[in-house]
Amino acid sequence: MTDRRSSRADNRTKTIMRAALDLALEVGYAKLSIEAVATRAGVGKHTVYRRWPSRGLLFLDAVLSLSTEGLNHPHTGDVVADLRETMAKAVDLLGQPPWGPLYQALIGEAQHDPEVAAALNRRFIEPQTADTLARLKTAKEQGELAPDFDLDLAFDMLSGPLYYRLLITQQPITHDYIDRVLHAAFAGMSPRPHAR
Amino acid sequence: MTDRRSSRADNRTKTIMRAALDLALEVGYAKLSIEAVATRAGVGKHTVYRRWPSRGLLFLDAVLSLSTEGLNHPHTGDVVADLRETMAKAVDLLGQPPWGPLYQALIGEAQHDPEVAAALNRRFIEPQTADTLARLKTAKEQGELAPDFDLDLAFDMLSGPLYYRLLITQQPITHDYIDRVLHAAFAGMSPRPHAR
Repeated sequence: MTDRRSSRADNRTKTIMRAALDLALEVGYAKLSIEAVATRAGVGKHTVYRRWPSRGLLFLDAVLSLSTEGLNHPHTGDVVADLRETMAKAVDLLGQPPWGPLYQALIGEAQHDPEVAAALNRRFIEPQTADTLARLKTAKEQGELAPDFDLDLAFDMLSGPLYYRLLITQQPITHDYIDRVLHAAFAGMSPRPHAR
Repeated sequence: MTDRRSSRADNRTKTIMRAALDLALEVGYAKLSIEAVATRAGVGKHTVYRRWPSRGLLFLDAVLSLSTEGLNHPHTGDVVADLRETMAKAVDLLGQPPWGPLYQALIGEAQHDPEVAAALNRRFIEPQTADTLARLKTAKEQGELAPDFDLDLAFDMLSGPLYYRLLITQQPITHDYIDRVLHAAFAGMSPRPHAR
């Protein structure tokens, strides 16, 4: 009996999140309201508020419930190839509905709501950063990175340009762009002394 | 007579923009409404709508009316020092009210409103990018950059990590962080061959 009741509650939670995503794609997140989500999901407004204190936190849960598989790095022994593969998967996700526009709207909301920003970091950004860091540590041990490279900065250096395109210039992020970023990050801007 | 009338219109425009900025700082951009701005400015709602078709475009004009002096690069002959000086000025602006939180809210709005995103790029991002590019071109001519460095990517590589902190991890952007970004961008991630 308890099981049946909790599975009904789970289904209702999923229905509400699905309604939030559908509406955000149809009318844009800016016009999304808890009322409209409740109506679309066929529940009362208070049923939504019992689960989520704000529109932003509902939207966060809904977006993060979508699959983002494949964002963990392979460990093939070639760090540039492994980074490229994971960045390409991220870019493929970002480049198309539903994930792309929904994730962009979520980051927009994070600029106005510190709770959304904190939860987004804890639940999505930090695990990705940790996975990248683990891949780069192995690369450093294997001599594929400069011994003094600032590992804690690597995720910012590699992801920063992608987020910059997504959020600021809003130009398309292509696989070619990833190749250019990887090349620039690995080669550096300084002139290189001639190799012996 | 025409002059006096147009100066009165100018003053009214400034009063409305000031009211929008004050309210955004007080209650947050998410809660800003054209109605509240009109009331604060002591004008009718239609006076605001005659000037701006949307809340986002009013806010854009208001934020970009604030001074952002010092974001053009010096040309001292030391490209890293010149980049550091300009990035430090940008970071000082970002790190404190009113510019920091208002600019962040503006980028948030740009995620939901393509007109705001396009105007922000055209009026603020593109001139900054062009100025950075001019500085880096000189550096390349003077042998301070790798001859094959992808200049069109330089602004993304240098600004990307700063925007990533501002918008995603929301960690403080310090002068020390700038030094680390510059070092990483110039040195690159690859192991370097020994200099002769």
